[in-house]
Amino acid sequence: MSQLDLTLDQVRALLGGGTLVGSGAFLCRGVASLGAAGPSDLSFVRGERNFNDARESAAGALLVPTPIDGVGAHQLAVPDPFLAFGAVLRVVAERKRHQVPGVHSGAHVDETARIGEGVTVGPGAVVSEHASVGDGSVIYGGAFLGSRSTVGADCVLHPNVVVMEDVDIGDRVTIHGGSVIGADGYGFMQHEGRHLKVPQVGRVVIGDDVEIGALTTIDRATIDATVIGRGTKIGDLVHVGHNCRIGEDVLLLPTVAISGSVVVGDRAVFAGRSGCVDNIEIGADAVLAATAVAYKDVPVGARVWGNPARDQGQEKRMQVLLGRLPGMASDLRDIKKRLGA
Amino acid sequence: MSQLDLTLDQVRALLGGGTLVGSGAFLCRGVASLGAAGPSDLSFVRGERNFNDARESAAGALLVPTPIDGVGAHQLAVPDPFLAFGAVLRVVAERKRHQVPGVHSGAHVDETARIGEGVTVGPGAVVSEHASVGDGSVIYGGAFLGSRSTVGADCVLHPNVVVMEDVDIGDRVTIHGGSVIGADGYGFMQHEGRHLKVPQVGRVVIGDDVEIGALTTIDRATIDATVIGRGTKIGDLVHVGHNCRIGEDVLLLPTVAISGSVVVGDRAVFAGRSGCVDNIEIGADAVLAATAVAYKDVPVGARVWGNPARDQGQEKRMQVLLGRLPGMASDLRDIKKRLGA
Amino acid sequence: MSQLDLTLDQVRALLGGGTLVGSGAFLCRGVASLGAAGPSDLSFVRGERNFNDARESAAGALLVPTPIDGVGAHQLAVPDPFLAFGAVLRVVAERKRHQVPGVHSGAHVDETARIGEGVTVGPGAVVSEHASVGDGSVIYGGAFLGSRSTVGADCVLHPNVVVMEDVDIGDRVTIHGGSVIGADGYGFMQHEGRHLKVPQVGRVVIGDDVEIGALTTIDRATIDATVIGRGTKIGDLVHVGHNCRIGEDVLLLPTVAISGSVVVGDRAVFAGRSGCVDNIEIGADAVLAATAVAYKDVPVGARVWGNPARDQGQEKRMQVLLGRLPGMASDLRDIKKRLGA
Repeated sequence: MSQLDLTLDQVRALLGGGTLVGSGAFLCRGVASLGAAGPSDLSFVRGERNFNDARESAAGALLVPTPIDGVGAHQLAVPDPFLAFGAVLRVVAERKRHQVPGVHSGAHVDETARIGEGVTVGPGAVVSEHASVGDGSVIYGGAFLGSRSTVGADCVLHPNVVVMEDVDIGDRVTIHGGSVIGADGYGFMQHEGRHLKVPQVGRVVIGDDVEIGALTTIDRATIDATVIGRGTKIGDLVHVGHNCRIGEDVLLLPTVAISGSVVVGDRAVFAGRSGCVDNIEIGADAVLAATAVAYKDVPVGARVWGNPARDQGQEKRMQVLLGRLPGMASDLRDIKKRLGA
Repeated sequence: MSQLDLTLDQVRALLGGGTLVGSGAFLCRGVASLGAAGPSDLSFVRGERNFNDARESAAGALLVPTPIDGVGAHQLAVPDPFLAFGAVLRVVAERKRHQVPGVHSGAHVDETARIGEGVTVGPGAVVSEHASVGDGSVIYGGAFLGSRSTVGADCVLHPNVVVMEDVDIGDRVTIHGGSVIGADGYGFMQHEGRHLKVPQVGRVVIGDDVEIGALTTIDRATIDATVIGRGTKIGDLVHVGHNCRIGEDVLLLPTVAISGSVVVGDRAVFAGRSGCVDNIEIGADAVLAATAVAYKDVPVGARVWGNPARDQGQEKRMQVLLGRLPGMASDLRDIKKRLGA
Repeated sequence: MSQLDLTLDQVRALLGGGTLVGSGAFLCRGVASLGAAGPSDLSFVRGERNFNDARESAAGALLVPTPIDGVGAHQLAVPDPFLAFGAVLRVVAERKRHQVPGVHSGAHVDETARIGEGVTVGPGAVVSEHASVGDGSVIYGGAFLGSRSTVGADCVLHPNVVVMEDVDIGDRVTIHGGSVIGADGYGFMQHEGRHLKVPQVGRVVIGDDVEIGALTTIDRATIDATVIGRGTKIGDLVHVGHNCRIGEDVLLLPTVAISGSVVVGDRAVFAGRSGCVDNIEIGADAVLAATAVAYKDVPVGARVWGNPARDQGQEKRMQVLLGRLPGMASDLRDIKKRLGA
């Protein structure tokens, strides 16, 4: 399906080696999963449990952990086929999304903006006053970069991404379509019976190697900075409230919601649709299970489940007890009858 | 409120018949609900339980299941007034959203793109290299169509929709404002203590007659295809993860979240804010109630409630038992006292 | 961090007075929180519990409720420092987001549209046929205003906001990046085994002084109007379904979801990720706690928690009882043993 057009020898060179069983001249036209691959595709075998799938696959070539007998395909044995396949996919991905460097004539780049070497700015994209875009970065069509905001080197802002003013983005950051970085946080105070806006004049600072999914919002701080640490990976439709300080190498899966002024430690994981209330701290290496919601601090390394989030063991016992409720109710009825109550 | 400007005779012709009580020459200027309609509006009466509302309505004309006595309005009796009113609304909707065919001078259409007959491309829209748009389709202003992506005939891509590269969209597909189709799925692997991206080079395939709400994300597959089956209807702010295979005539209501690699059978229904974890299968005709979350396969035709999702009957009994907890606790106290514990 | 560049005397004039301790000539270059402020920044002290933080702060100047001893910074004592600081932030915010009035040459304004005095329309923005924009309003780059829609005076539509046709927006309304107002509601009927669309031809009406966060969807009514009342404040990633009537001064925090045809009374509060099913009524001054989900009407002034939402006291007792479940189970075991069962 996805074009590769490399011979197995070229794949071997790309991976820096491997044991070949079959012909290195075989041309891998595309990449596909074992089940979907055809005779001109390269696929991969993660481990022994997939050996039979490999024998049934129509794939023309396979990355394997060790040569597999009974397989017709050309094989290239490498230490970690999944990791190696990832490297191959990277080639495909780069080729698919290749953008011709240059500022499109339909882009709107302010004359005070600074555009680095080899930058692509697509049609309809806006780069505002005193904004800057680092070398090799791609600003897709329809994306908006606000006043004084900076984008580092080798970043990708996908179509219709909105980066408001005074946002600092590191190097090698990818932001998928439609996400909004630096909207005002939700800050209102009561005044004479009405809701009065607390102006949000802070910033957003995003570290190197961060990836942000589609349609995600990361709000600017009230006065200081909302921070996303280096290497953190954020999914689609995620909300990060104002003043949050998210650590490094954190995982926020799709549809996670984090309220304002939350501190999240390094390597913490928020699974799908989990979240937490404002002004709490989630410790480093903590894991919130899918749909878990924390209402108070979560200790370093803790694994919490449920809403309200509880220690994983405690929540499991709770679920077991809930399963026993019908039996408990019936026992109680029996006992009351027996006691003549 | 919404303009119709058809006489009751013209409405009758549009509907292919009906029994008229009153004047066919009556001009229906607008459409409105029974409560909001004025003397120049057409409204409708779904069934007997609305007959009194009909008598109190100021509507000038009514679609009715059978002539109603005591109603001053002109009446047109048809077998299914709700269905018939839908047909009338279709006329209003088409008129309201009428777009002059043609490519706007402010649109950015690559010279290698293929644009069908009678296509509208609005200002600021981007149609990338080798993309194609089928006859009669409308690409609103600010929408983005990526490289090699195809849009069928009679589709509507609303403003600021993002369709990334290598996405195939069938005929008569509507995608509402700001939705993002084909962003990278959430795929990372651990490597030397960091999160390493698994490139996402697969596709998204969307069948005929699919409708997708506003600000919804459907992620591309890792290597094969994320599939949305024919006739499936998806609401606003929905997330469909990578590698999912959603069947035909499925309903995903607003704010539903489906993690990656989930298989959903035909005609299944996910009610508001329901969802499921990755790598499970939801059977055909299954129904997840509002906010239900499935952590394991849901059988064909099952109706599940709650988080974790349980069979509807089981969950109802659980809610009843929870309601009895105070009584159970008090019974236990009594028994312990009585037993001198 | 954020530029102010006012002397303390100028700040005092802006606030209409205050008791000065130190030099009115001190130049406040920026604003920051107590912890982040440097010697050229203005910060504020909310109340007595922050007096020690004030003593440790490096801030050059402070808004205080009353002069604090042991503080090196210049001080300006005002009755409500938080409110006063908000007024200062407003100056910074206006300056940061200053837009030069005028229609950018890259904007697409239809010749039938009406543009008021002092309006800004950014590059790539679209103003459609017969739409109108009131005096002093700002339409950022990439925003879309549909046919016949009206925007009042002093509004801000942030980048890539989508306002579909026939939407009426009052004065002083702010809509943050990427939000979609007036997409079709989720309306389908069963017909011959398929889902048939119920055309959505109604409107959206948004009152004065409403603020709407980023990536939020407010769907148009089927035939009448979806209404957002004056002064209501809505967060990011919120969904308001078709036909809803939201009252005045309501708070809908980020990631709230309200299904179709819901009536919400004045001053009601939906905390983070709370929501409700369709066709119910939430009374004035009611409060739904974070993640609460209402499946039936909520009375005026009620405070509800949980999913399903229950009266706050009832839900608290329920949580206490659930905490006692392990003890109850163990008591039951003891009793059964004792009774020889």
